[in-house]
Amino acid sequence: MTITELGLAAQSASRALAASTGAQRNAALSAMAEALAAQEQDILAANELDMQAAAQNGMSQSLQDRLALTPSRVEGMRQGILELVAAPDPLGLVLGGGVRPNGLRIQQVSVPLGVIGMIYEARPNVTADAAALCLKSGNAVILRGGKEAIHSNKAIADCLRGAAASAGLPADCVQLIGDASRESARALMRANGLIDVLIPRGGAGLIRAVVEESSVPVLETGEGVCHTYVDAAADLAMALDIAENAKCSRPSVCNAMETLLVHEKIAPAYLPRLAERLAKYPVELRCDAASLPLCGGVPATEDDWAAEYDDLILSVKIVASLEEALAHIARYGTKHSECVVTGDYAAAQAFLQAVDAAAVYVNASTRFTDGGEFGLGAEIGIVARQKLHARGPLGLRHLTSYKYMIYGDGQVR
Amino acid sequence: MTITELGLAAQSASRALAASTGAQRNAALSAMAEALAAQEQDILAANELDMQAAAQNGMSQSLQDRLALTPSRVEGMRQGILELVAAPDPLGLVLGGGVRPNGLRIQQVSVPLGVIGMIYEARPNVTADAAALCLKSGNAVILRGGKEAIHSNKAIADCLRGAAASAGLPADCVQLIGDASRESARALMRANGLIDVLIPRGGAGLIRAVVEESSVPVLETGEGVCHTYVDAAADLAMALDIAENAKCSRPSVCNAMETLLVHEKIAPAYLPRLAERLAKYPVELRCDAASLPLCGGVPATEDDWAAEYDDLILSVKIVASLEEALAHIARYGTKHSECVVTGDYAAAQAFLQAVDAAAVYVNASTRFTDGGEFGLGAEIGIVARQKLHARGPLGLRHLTSYKYMIYGDGQVR
Repeated sequence: MTITELGLAAQSASRALAASTGAQRNAALSAMAEALAAQEQDILAANELDMQAAAQNGMSQSLQDRLALTPSRVEGMRQGILELVAAPDPLGLVLGGGVRPNGLRIQQVSVPLGVIGMIYEARPNVTADAAALCLKSGNAVILRGGKEAIHSNKAIADCLRGAAASAGLPADCVQLIGDASRESARALMRANGLIDVLIPRGGAGLIRAVVEESSVPVLETGEGVCHTYVDAAADLAMALDIAENAKCSRPSVCNAMETLLVHEKIAPAYLPRLAERLAKYPVELRCDAASLPLCGGVPATEDDWAAEYDDLILSVKIVASLEEALAHIARYGTKHSECVVTGDYAAAQAFLQAVDAAAVYVNASTRFTDGGEFGLGAEIGIVARQKLHARGPLGLRHLTSYKYMIYGDGQVR
Repeated sequence: MTITELGLAAQSASRALAASTGAQRNAALSAMAEALAAQEQDILAANELDMQAAAQNGMSQSLQDRLALTPSRVEGMRQGILELVAAPDPLGLVLGGGVRPNGLRIQQVSVPLGVIGMIYEARPNVTADAAALCLKSGNAVILRGGKEAIHSNKAIADCLRGAAASAGLPADCVQLIGDASRESARALMRANGLIDVLIPRGGAGLIRAVVEESSVPVLETGEGVCHTYVDAAADLAMALDIAENAKCSRPSVCNAMETLLVHEKIAPAYLPRLAERLAKYPVELRCDAASLPLCGGVPATEDDWAAEYDDLILSVKIVASLEEALAHIARYGTKHSECVVTGDYAAAQAFLQAVDAAAVYVNASTRFTDGGEFGLGAEIGIVARQKLHARGPLGLRHLTSYKYMIYGDGQVR
């Protein structure tokens, strides 16, 4: 099928979804969860084909780990869907409104975005997660996953499509592009009028290509070069706990700390103790000239300040003031998550106001930037640089738009 | 100056704006209003240069009318700015938040978008309107107006820049691209990292070009192919008033009706009377085969159903049911403003739910889709097709994003 055919089918499905009730969408989600369990063997067998090809093609172990499905990973997808069944319906919410002086009654009501295109890499669980989030929020979805996961994705998508149909919704609520080529991704990016929003999910290269080439509106999920600034007035023990957590609790994710900024007054007391804490992982430290003698490691290069390591590596810099920390963050940050550790009221307020990022923390780890932690429920990605529509974790509510419903009794202008 | 230089200057100004208070921004707006009055003669003289060139180049009368400035139009720009001084500050509003189970206090707070790029045609009043809306909402703006208005735009921008500086804000809060070429517009569209949002304002061709070519996120202000559907159960007098108002009160704007759909049961009673009402303007009617004998006019072609006339022309079609009306709107509408006239509760509800448009009306003219009429204040455009970020009239609140400010006391994950 061409992208145009997929798009027209998705539009038709999206109209059915917009007219469906929350109960119908929940019934379809429940059927999807059941079908995943019932068809687990088929899905694992399909994944085995992808894994064999990956091994033959010399895919790296970490990528193979992302590609692999196991009974517990299928169960994880199933549980994720069941959590969405329990989540509140994001549609039909009255977001605002009132009566105008002429008597017009205006209601601003949440509605689906319409048709969402997802472009992602070789992680088959995204197929189930994204399809379920889109269905819950009343959106038809066209999935374009990585070609390395094509057998797994087809098995999962077929399973979900059958479940949607069994619950009385169109199977085309969920469509997978069978041809995982560069051209199919590009066609999706130019399908204005058929696709309402494109969400790329994956590495920086994928995101950048979609932002550069897409004429369809994009929700740019993002890179995280996150900083923790340990102020002169920081509580030492708290600053140690927060930095260790921000770097080491899950270094591969976008809300992990990549650069530590330390005020020069506290650096001699702080950095040696931090280095000791981080040595046990071990974390490689890349330090500016002032911090190097205090914590050891290797000298940082200019590239280090802009690097998203996603690994047990940390760049370290000593600053003379809060202002220098703010300037460094403005220059090298990606507007994702930034933290100040301080006991000083004015420093905390200044940091909160001045830092331009989706999430700005006082005295807490940047690792909390997450849909679940923010109380938004499951997320489809985290937006950093982009300012339109939504910032930070994208939850169900961010997969909606709104329309104005206006009740008149003959008003003219 | 290159777009990169303009962009860097705008980023620097946007940081100053983000740190400014509402009182400072209002003082700058007041200074701008004063400066427009004080420099009226210079602005009119600059406009005279543009008007002379326009006449020499054979610009059409309607475009010349849009280009022309008069003392009363300058006064209109001044009044628009003073209204913004009186408008509530859209920044720093707490949009949501709460305490998480771990004690983290999360606040979602409105912040500026950052740097806005405006691409527009030969309407010099947009220069002042857009600059003032952006300043009030804490955004730096880069203006790229049509080359036909370049002298007028330079005079207005210089005036506003001086006023901003006199009030202690950077002059670069407002920048005008001196080179109104195709290349400068294109450079603006590719300035990711420097420009946060691009807002095109003008004809369908301009909007489409920006949507197609821009890698910077776009707020797609839009075409309006707006329908009024007169249901079988409509009040005849009300349906006459609404249709006349929707077509004739200001036919050149995007919320004017372009196509009238009439239920076959009411058409024989309704259409002859409507034709009589519209004859006095006069409105040219382009009719399907069934309506032609009832109201006269000329036969409609397929192109008419998709046409945004922006003129005293109306296409007319008789439908057999509400469903046929909904299908026609789904096929030819632009998701802008759609109206049903009916006394039937079920028909009204079905129309409100099924129509996918920014504004859906029961028993009121589509002409109300307007920032002022919706209580949003001055608008920078109206979004129709696009679903991301904001739909319908774009007011001050839609020129903002948000960030999460998170208050912790040592939380780690």
